[in-house]
Amino acid sequence: MRIAVDAMGGDHAPDEIVRGALLYREADGKADLVLVGRDDDVRRALGRHAATPGISVVDARDVVSMDEHPANALRRRGDTSIGVATTLVKKGEADAVISAGNTGATMAAALLILGRVKGIDRPALCGMLPTTAGKPACLIDAGATMDVDAKNLLQYALMASRFMEHVHGVAHPTVGLLNVGEEPEKGGRVQQEAHALLSGAEGITFYGNVEGRDVMRGTTDIVVCDGFVGNVLAKGMEGVVDVFREGIRDDIFGGLLGKIAAVVALRGVNKLRHRLDYDPYASAPLLGVAGVSVVTHGRARGPMLRYAIEVGERAVATQLVATIGTVGA
Amino acid sequence: MRIAVDAMGGDHAPDEIVRGALLYREADGKADLVLVGRDDDVRRALGRHAATPGISVVDARDVVSMDEHPANALRRRGDTSIGVATTLVKKGEADAVISAGNTGATMAAALLILGRVKGIDRPALCGMLPTTAGKPACLIDAGATMDVDAKNLLQYALMASRFMEHVHGVAHPTVGLLNVGEEPEKGGRVQQEAHALLSGAEGITFYGNVEGRDVMRGTTDIVVCDGFVGNVLAKGMEGVVDVFREGIRDDIFGGLLGKIAAVVALRGVNKLRHRLDYDPYASAPLLGVAGVSVVTHGRARGPMLRYAIEVGERAVATQLVATIGTVGA
Repeated sequence: MRIAVDAMGGDHAPDEIVRGALLYREADGKADLVLVGRDDDVRRALGRHAATPGISVVDARDVVSMDEHPANALRRRGDTSIGVATTLVKKGEADAVISAGNTGATMAAALLILGRVKGIDRPALCGMLPTTAGKPACLIDAGATMDVDAKNLLQYALMASRFMEHVHGVAHPTVGLLNVGEEPEKGGRVQQEAHALLSGAEGITFYGNVEGRDVMRGTTDIVVCDGFVGNVLAKGMEGVVDVFREGIRDDIFGGLLGKIAAVVALRGVNKLRHRLDYDPYASAPLLGVAGVSVVTHGRARGPMLRYAIEVGERAVATQLVATIGTVGA
Repeated sequence: MRIAVDAMGGDHAPDEIVRGALLYREADGKADLVLVGRDDDVRRALGRHAATPGISVVDARDVVSMDEHPANALRRRGDTSIGVATTLVKKGEADAVISAGNTGATMAAALLILGRVKGIDRPALCGMLPTTAGKPACLIDAGATMDVDAKNLLQYALMASRFMEHVHGVAHPTVGLLNVGEEPEKGGRVQQEAHALLSGAEGITFYGNVEGRDVMRGTTDIVVCDGFVGNVLAKGMEGVVDVFREGIRDDIFGGLLGKIAAVVALRGVNKLRHRLDYDPYASAPLLGVAGVSVVTHGRARGPMLRYAIEVGERAVATQLVATIGTVGA
């Protein structure tokens, strides 16, 4: 197995991306890794690890920056790291592509270069979130497709169910339809239709409607919504997490007394930190495209990137894309 | 001025509702209050304050519970506290209605009994949220109307602008369109159309697109979205706040060492608590209906209810409904 890693994508590229690749190899990862990016930059980041077995470098001179229009950048420039990495998958020279870069660019590359799985009308980003139930939940779609109908939402539920079974080992994952209340008649036209479709569907364990607050509680393993709502919700929740992280650091443990308190409460602080640590699953595979494409957080450092590579590895090993092909059949 | 208060609505009714009414009167509130609910229950809650000047009781034997279908309950039963309280406004016997009860019932009562303001196509719930910018932000629509078009979103922006000027004293409040990215072409069809409409609109200060994380940062005074997205986002953010509140209490300050740390860090804990205290504005007026109707949190206790009454008072004193009538003209 070979996995292509966009070495230039993300806030801490290439150093932390390369570190993640090395961590993966040190942990006896099954796949060989192809680091795609500016040859000289990547080799400098590799340093004395340049000869690590199972790691090679493919040169790509260009990068799609975080604030560029992704599809335009890809169409106009043939030598971007994400474009080259995705093309390796298309050519069969790699089995998966992983990127912490511009999410739109990773999605656009997957759609333009790999294309859709037959029978799946719209791709969806499968965002993994931490929950207080001590297990991750999958929010699908976290931002790939804006305008959807009820049938798209059913396909998301089916794809995410196979993903949670294959990649995260969850038997009979439960599916919640994101809505404004529990009753089947809640929500707009699309949600009402989707509730009826999901209720009668085979191949999923439908729980019913869930609300915004259920996502972090882990009420269901999977939360289904359109990409607009999923993106707004994920970013809104992340915004609150940031506020509390800063508040705990600066307000509670900021001054001199705070610093003393921090030492005394260290165990508790670590407990809370551990509870909300989502490095091991902060990856968002793009489902519905004809290949394994995994996006991870722009902020990703080495450990988070290592886990994203592992998600890609499991998706390849369990033949996730072929299974999703049967969803659309 | 007279304000009708649904004394039976909310998790802590009638005791905390009555306490909020008394707090308002003790703080020299301008309006007389009419407490609407089961006469005996309300009088018991009033206790020795039964003869407080400016407080009267109107009997209503029935209550819409938190999990009832609101419109059905209101159509079938004529003697619910929210129905009677809203009817007082319709008859001109009160100038505003305040409730911490079933939000759907408060909205349904306002729509069925008061009706819409001429020229406003859809009502919207104006949810007030705390921000780290040290000022509240208004999320409109927080859950009144599910399926909307771009013109509805423009009306929300206009109504919320007048609300923030009149009731919260913000000059030239900035309006953000909730979206998945900054660029005008982001989002679905409705958001793209709304961006164009808002860009050219008079009577608002349009900032451009904002994202989920901007809401808590207070990037704009007003965040415009449809009621489905607004409801999901508000509940999602609230869910994260709850997780951190519990985490700080149980994980960080839970054990013996944690309790010692809590005493040492008390000033910091209070600082964070104060920063996120949104009692003074945790009210959601329903805009676009022909009268002042203010919803507050089901969890509301006395102080939060007092502030909701003050929001109603300011809406009446500044003739908000008449001003909104000019928006629709």
